[in-house]
Amino acid sequence: MAKSINYSYETLKKFCKDAFLKFGFDDAQSDIIVDVLLTSDLYGIESHGMQRLVRYHKGIEKGLIKVDAKPEIVFETPVSAVIEGNDGMGQLLGHKAMEIAIEKAKTTGMAIVTVRNSNHYGIAGYYAKMACKEGLIGMSMTNSEAIMVPTFGKKAMLGSNPIAIAMPAKPYDFFFDASTTVVTRGKLEVYNKMDKPLPEGWALNKDGKGSSDASDVLKNIVAKAGGGIMPLGGETEQLGSHKGYGYGMFCEIFTSILSMGLTSNHTHLNGKGGTCHGFVAINPAVFGNADDIKEHLSTLLQELRESPKAEGCERIYTHGEKEVIAFKDRLKNGINVNINTVAEMVDLCKYLDMDVKKYLGEEALKLTLNKSSYDM
Amino acid sequence: MAKSINYSYETLKKFCKDAFLKFGFDDAQSDIIVDVLLTSDLYGIESHGMQRLVRYHKGIEKGLIKVDAKPEIVFETPVSAVIEGNDGMGQLLGHKAMEIAIEKAKTTGMAIVTVRNSNHYGIAGYYAKMACKEGLIGMSMTNSEAIMVPTFGKKAMLGSNPIAIAMPAKPYDFFFDASTTVVTRGKLEVYNKMDKPLPEGWALNKDGKGSSDASDVLKNIVAKAGGGIMPLGGETEQLGSHKGYGYGMFCEIFTSILSMGLTSNHTHLNGKGGTCHGFVAINPAVFGNADDIKEHLSTLLQELRESPKAEGCERIYTHGEKEVIAFKDRLKNGINVNINTVAEMVDLCKYLDMDVKKYLGEEALKLTLNKSSYDM
Repeated sequence: MAKSINYSYETLKKFCKDAFLKFGFDDAQSDIIVDVLLTSDLYGIESHGMQRLVRYHKGIEKGLIKVDAKPEIVFETPVSAVIEGNDGMGQLLGHKAMEIAIEKAKTTGMAIVTVRNSNHYGIAGYYAKMACKEGLIGMSMTNSEAIMVPTFGKKAMLGSNPIAIAMPAKPYDFFFDASTTVVTRGKLEVYNKMDKPLPEGWALNKDGKGSSDASDVLKNIVAKAGGGIMPLGGETEQLGSHKGYGYGMFCEIFTSILSMGLTSNHTHLNGKGGTCHGFVAINPAVFGNADDIKEHLSTLLQELRESPKAEGCERIYTHGEKEVIAFKDRLKNGINVNINTVAEMVDLCKYLDMDVKKYLGEEALKLTLNKSSYDM
Repeated sequence: MAKSINYSYETLKKFCKDAFLKFGFDDAQSDIIVDVLLTSDLYGIESHGMQRLVRYHKGIEKGLIKVDAKPEIVFETPVSAVIEGNDGMGQLLGHKAMEIAIEKAKTTGMAIVTVRNSNHYGIAGYYAKMACKEGLIGMSMTNSEAIMVPTFGKKAMLGSNPIAIAMPAKPYDFFFDASTTVVTRGKLEVYNKMDKPLPEGWALNKDGKGSSDASDVLKNIVAKAGGGIMPLGGETEQLGSHKGYGYGMFCEIFTSILSMGLTSNHTHLNGKGGTCHGFVAINPAVFGNADDIKEHLSTLLQELRESPKAEGCERIYTHGEKEVIAFKDRLKNGINVNINTVAEMVDLCKYLDMDVKKYLGEEALKLTLNKSSYDM
């Protein structure tokens, strides 16, 4: 039995665009949301692409995400801004916030914009890349529903709290986008959908013991029953658990703390989202000749790629390289969508009164006949 | 046989101060250097305190560190500066650079200062704390001699590349200072001095295989023979090796890249140091009421400390708490200095024509009779 369906980028784009229009977003808004979502799949970060659609669907359905929210700038200086998101769609708030950060950084040299009361905004890296495309260093961070168990704890207190940074380089931009947990919740969701046991060193059950059961860990996270994902560095200080936990706090400072928003442990309670983001844009030109600086970074990246490989390893990647490779491949060869995710897309069609066959093909209907995202 | 000697803070301060005066630094300069050095021991970060003295000693002796170097600001804007260090003492360059960052941030809201052609500057966190004491968020980073082997590589290409961040909070400031490798080179030096095998998951031998032999790994690092320390997250992507490697690059961007200085893999070659630093200062007041923001962070830290503990764990620490505890303890009860480090201090006395008995006591002479740092 097929475990996935291959769709062209254009097919998924059309489907997503029409879905978000049906949700009530306008044309420009829908374009932004779809671009964030599909860029993730094109980059090969399946955990944050189509497989996350169901969360937006349900977020809107439950009123966590308000389609007609109007963001407000509640504090502003030439180098900073704080945006009250009023429970709007994360991608729209993130896009707007980074636009403001970019504009300010072009004038002043650097800027930080924080956002509170937002929702899941997709891959952090998307916004870092926005700045990078303008020749700037971009950073993007978000807190999230509590999922990281602090070192020596057994209750999730911080989010997956990704930190992304992008900087112009040749032939690929430097592009680093990673959760400060060992893995993301999205990765657990992917393992869950594939019915695969989790590797050792990723997650903790509700008693704070190592667990390989993705379904159980995810249920406990949602039920706030205890357990969660380990910080980068694992459970103990010996391999640096306190460091992953520290980077998680770094993210929290630049998101919830500097926006006076909800910290991860207070988000997603009582029918409220409350996610917070942070965006940084820095113009390399305030440190010298931007072209020379770009060249300097490119040289280091090239030296890294060319440095001696460990036995059995064919190449050393620099950050952003895998995404460029995946992007080209998927634009050409299509995007494989897991059948459980297709089931969620079929449900969404029904919910929005969209023609499944027209958007997703007969195969989608046939293969998902006995599945429903509501069962999961 | 005693493995260490306990010295009071005042005794070590007097010894260090006079040693740096003898090296040719002036009074104010010596005070700064000694404060950076001993703050590390007071914080309980032995790897970067007295046990690093020998590196400064030998750095000055070999001409890597130029006592009379004059730093120059080679590029400057209201939010940034680049300092050419001219091979000066790292602590002095770091202190000056952070002072500039603080001054700029107080005017503009935020600033970044980078330094090139410096030397080892002690604990990164010292400079982050400088900003924190002024009510600002402080960050400090440094590259170093190549020691981190990138994911899938076998040659050290990046430094231990610490990232430190400090932010005002009650009752303790948030203070996170960590290498982006699993552990620092200093930790390996401490294990080496104690003749202890390294835990699994820390270091690689010259062929890129896991090694527990601190002495061998350190020799290979110095000889550029291959191997080194793993990025935070270990050897493979499964536990996030690419993330530690990514944070290492983050550090490299804010140090060598934005200063147009030597990247870690080019430092410490051909009798040249070339270390680069980066300093960030951000005024929380450009995001709202600084007191409210401090309170908000303090609440999260308190919630973390009070959250449920894993079985067998008595407390959850927040970053900076251990340093406060160690600081109080060591000021009161003294600082234990490993006997191999005492031997280095005795050598330094002889080199600088200082009276060992007067500065370090008879015990130091007796216990280090057959030891010399030059043998190690």
